[in-house]
This record gives sequence, structure tokens and C-alpha cells, in this order.
Amino acid sequence: MIKRIDFWFDFASTYSYLSALRIDPLASAKGVKVNWRPFLLGPVFAAMGWNDSPFNIYPSKGRYMWRDMERLCKYYGIPLRRPSKFPRNGIRPARIICAHQDAPWVPDFVREVFSAGFARDQDIGEREVVVGLLESMGLDAEVLIAVAESPEGKDRLRRQTEEAFNLDIFGAPTFIVGGEMFWGNDRLEQALAWTEGIHD
Amino acid sequence: MIKRIDFWFDFASTYSYLSALRIDPLASAKGVKVNWRPFLLGPVFAAMGWNDSPFNIYPSKGRYMWRDMERLCKYYGIPLRRPSKFPRNGIRPARIICAHQDAPWVPDFVREVFSAGFARDQDIGEREVVVGLLESMGLDAEVLIAVAESPEGKDRLRRQTEEAFNLDIFGAPTFIVGGEMFWGNDRLEQALAWTEGIHD
Repeated sequence: MIKRIDFWFDFASTYSYLSALRIDPLASAKGVKVNWRPFLLGPVFAAMGWNDSPFNIYPSKGRYMWRDMERLCKYYGIPLRRPSKFPRNGIRPARIICAHQDAPWVPDFVREVFSAGFARDQDIGEREVVVGLLESMGLDAEVLIAVAESPEGKDRLRRQTEEAFNLDIFGAPTFIVGGEMFWGNDRLEQALAWTEGIHD
Repeated sequence: MIKRIDFWFDFASTYSYLSALRIDPLASAKGVKVNWRPFLLGPVFAAMGWNDSPFNIYPSKGRYMWRDMERLCKYYGIPLRRPSKFPRNGIRPARIICAHQDAPWVPDFVREVFSAGFARDQDIGEREVVVGLLESMGLDAEVLIAVAESPEGKDRLRRQTEEAFNLDIFGAPTFIVGGEMFWGNDRLEQALAWTEGIHD
């Protein structure tokens, strides 16, 4: 049986950025397949009564989060440039992944998008930024975006976000291993250990 | 210079329980003095617009937290019995500690109160429960409680909670080392490393 970890993330999420850049080597070392599952935190937060990131709604939490990110990025050796606008709108790249779930370029594209947003302060909500990222990877941006933004493409992300909701996901990143949920970049190692039957 | 960690906690906080039971041997091993600082999350949460624990206000977060606690307690070897009422009111034991900050029995009393709440499902808000805990430690409960509940005793906890607020604390447990804040039981090891000048 192939061991698998479902990695639920939103491109606007700071801690998802850390996990997106860390997960592949850690999972490979354990022979675990990563299932990349973008979704939108917006509707999930809206159901909790929030119309913005909790890091904006609760300023003390926000101040702490950015300092925590600085420390963690230094520790992991991951670059960080605090975005001039937060949160960005990650719907466009999320749709692209949902519409091409099994494409071999998905993991690289996820890392490219996160790095654009959190290492280079690019606006990942802008079409031209996303086109640039896809083209830099040698992909046909126009075709991929057309598929992603077709009614069927849009519906895929909508359904994936509903699935997150039905799984009781309330934040990102969230990892699911065999029905067991782990929330937060802090829990990545614990989630991967769970794939090996280390259940505590 | 004596290395010091300020440990801010609320007796109603589940993750504070984990840190309260873990901190002493970890700090001792590094020659770090623990400064036990109870405060009340209630006023801090009220300022964020919450009139209850976020784990009650946001049920998906609450369901996750209890499962996470089960896993973590198993991992740490810490007993857990989910309280029949959550959160409990920790004001009484918090006042006792504030009024006797430097007493040698403080760390043991903190652990006793947390264990009563989270390992034995006792109501730590009830006077007789607190009396029982103090007496089981060979202390004069009536005298200690009288001092704690004098106007000056009450004022100490009030001021300590205001201090937490002024420090930008928004949750518990929170650790402060040389002006640097760390939030959550997950960060205890990182906070202790910070006392040694390991700054990432």
C-alpha cells in the first residue's frame, strides 16, 4: 500500500508556505506520496464569522505571526519578504492546480507560487504574474489558464473547498493521513510519522 | 546572569497544562529559572471580541484541539481526562500564586491544579477543591486563601493580567525570554533555546 499524506493549503497562508517548501524531501525520505490539495480559506473563515485573515482581525496575533515567521524562516533557511499586501488572493493558481491535479509540474508550481508571494512580494492574484511563473517553467500558460478558468475548472476548486469544509478543516496548512487530521506547519513531522504507524 | 523564562499561563488552558507539566526538567537542564506567571485569558479574549473559549466558539477548532491533546498527552506520557465542563474558572488558584509569587511550593501547586483540572476532572473553580489541593501539600489553605482574596491579593492578579495585555499576549501558554515572545506549547523548546543565545 502506498503511504499518502493529503496536504491542504491556501496560497495566501504564511504557514502553508513553510510546509510547501519543506514537505517534499521529508515525505520522500519516508516513501510517502504527497497529495497537493489547494483550497480557499475565505469561505471557511466566512463560516467562522471572519471576513479577513485572523492575523488582520486580531492585530496582536498578526504581529506575533510575522515575528514567528521571521524566526522560523531563518531556522529552516527559507527566504521571507513580508508581503506589502496581506493576504493575497490565491484563487487563480489554486484553480490551475485543481484543474491539473496529476500533472508532474504541480509540486514545482506550488513552490513557485508560494515563493513569488512570500519571498519576492509578487501579487499572485494577478494574471500576468501567474503567466510569468508558468512560462518560466516552460509551460503553456494560456492553455493551462483557459482550462482552469472554464466553468468546469472553477467548479473543481469550489468542490475541493467544500470538501475541506466537510472534513472539518478550519485552517491551513492541514495534513490528513488515514483520516487523522494535523493542523499547522508545526505538525508536519508528526503527520508524516503517522504514515508509519507511529501513533502518538 | 541568571537565565530566565517567563511562563504565562491560564489554569483553564489545555495547552498550558502540557507546558506546566513539561517545563521544569527542560528548564533545569539548561540552568534556566522559570518565572510562573498566571493570568486570566478572559479579559484578553474579551478584548478580541470573544466571550468564551475560542475552542467553544469555533467548534471545528475545538474538536481538533481535543484530539490533538489526546495525541500529545500520549506522546508526552501525561494523563488526560477531558473535563466535563470547559473552560473551568482558574481565578482562585491564579490569585493564590500571584499573592505568593516567590513561595517554594508554587511550581508544585501549579502542577497540582492543572492535574486536578485535566487529569481528574475536578472543578478548580471551587473553593473546597483548592483547599484540598493546598492541604494535600501540607500547606495552611485558609491562611493562603485569605491573603489571596484580600483586596491587595485580588489586585495583584488584576495587574498581572493587565501586564499580559500590555505585553501583547493573546493566548496561553506564552513564553517570554529577553523580550522575545513564543506562543504555544509547541514553542517551549524554542523559547528555552533562546535563553542560550540560539536565535533562530
